[in-house]
Amino acid sequence: MYETERHRGSIVVIIDILRASSAICSAFANGVKTIIPVESVGEAREYKKKGYLVAAERDGIILDFADFGNSPFNFTRDKIEGKTVVYSTTNGTGIIKLAASADFVVIGSFLNISALSEWILKKEQDVLLFCAGWKNRFNLEDSVCAGAFAERLTASDQFVTICDSTKAALDLWGLARNDLKHYIDKAAHRSRLKANGLDDCIEFCLTADYTDKIPVIQNGVLVDNILKK
Amino acid sequence: MYETERHRGSIVVIIDILRASSAICSAFANGVKTIIPVESVGEAREYKKKGYLVAAERDGIILDFADFGNSPFNFTRDKIEGKTVVYSTTNGTGIIKLAASADFVVIGSFLNISALSEWILKKEQDVLLFCAGWKNRFNLEDSVCAGAFAERLTASDQFVTICDSTKAALDLWGLARNDLKHYIDKAAHRSRLKANGLDDCIEFCLTADYTDKIPVIQNGVLVDNILKK
Repeated sequence: MYETERHRGSIVVIIDILRASSAICSAFANGVKTIIPVESVGEAREYKKKGYLVAAERDGIILDFADFGNSPFNFTRDKIEGKTVVYSTTNGTGIIKLAASADFVVIGSFLNISALSEWILKKEQDVLLFCAGWKNRFNLEDSVCAGAFAERLTASDQFVTICDSTKAALDLWGLARNDLKHYIDKAAHRSRLKANGLDDCIEFCLTADYTDKIPVIQNGVLVDNILKK
Repeated sequence: MYETERHRGSIVVIIDILRASSAICSAFANGVKTIIPVESVGEAREYKKKGYLVAAERDGIILDFADFGNSPFNFTRDKIEGKTVVYSTTNGTGIIKLAASADFVVIGSFLNISALSEWILKKEQDVLLFCAGWKNRFNLEDSVCAGAFAERLTASDQFVTICDSTKAALDLWGLARNDLKHYIDKAAHRSRLKANGLDDCIEFCLTADYTDKIPVIQNGVLVDNILKK
């Protein structure tokens, strides 16, 4: 449960690895200029009318007016380099807006785990690893990724956790790490993607350090690297 | 997140092992007649004025007007046999009321794990293992106990789960089972109890099969064994 007041002043890492946070990291790796997250289908449609590129899906299905959906493979350099993309998914964008009261909201996935962890370690701020889950429920793949982040952060002595959910995530990551794909195979969302023929990107989403981009929200819009300045 | 409509017709197992669900199981083991769960401190105080025995605490501290608090060791046979106890705790009683729309609401803990699992296996109903957690947050000890229940239920072929949280609970139970006390030592609530000097009952709360009682809510009141008839 996200508590606005409690996390004011924190770094919030949004983790939604199948597929929103992985897709966003890939988009920045492939040179997207900015991503505008929107919550409603109506807003996404309005942007489309104005000529924007729109990535939008609900429950894994691409909306009929959208240019593409939520697979990281959609955000190819030829389509998006230097452009602004409007983005609306089942889970991801609502959560990004929810967390907008924090000091920094950044997008985390296995794809940028080292770059993001190293950036966090340079800051002296509390960190909330925010697992998107699925329609307000726990999911396995985001928890495992949160465990991987937590391991890197707590290894430094700079971070401690008194939070049971972080401890559980660390333990689940410990079980999963040696054969991540096999472990994630038992996750419910994995089955949902498979049923919709959307599971081709899973191995990619579990790849560590595909990019050193750190997507961050500034004035309601996702941009890259502004933090590094 | 508990969804009233979704779980109508289910068996809801309330798991709050440190200490509410363990205390309730012990109370029935020691012959309590009924337990009246109440949500507010005010209600508990009114019952006390009427002459009821009252067990009430907030954040691990016994309320000044109460007869005793929330340790399973408080519910001794000499105090409670054949009596009605009014019961109000930080977590437990609110959750019991929340779940009252289900078909059966039963109290689960390690103390009655075999009796309750066997009873569930005789029914043909969906089961929700409802971990109380701590103030709306995940906790480790209830998740591990839920994993222990899930293992017994899914071992039968009668139950399957497509739920990531059950799968995670099974994995955490797998990590914890060989040295449960040591594993629970890292839980945040364990530290909270220790800080308040309330941790003397933890080993007891991790004991399997202390009783075959199955506390169940009937007409808003906890009774025993009515289900077995």
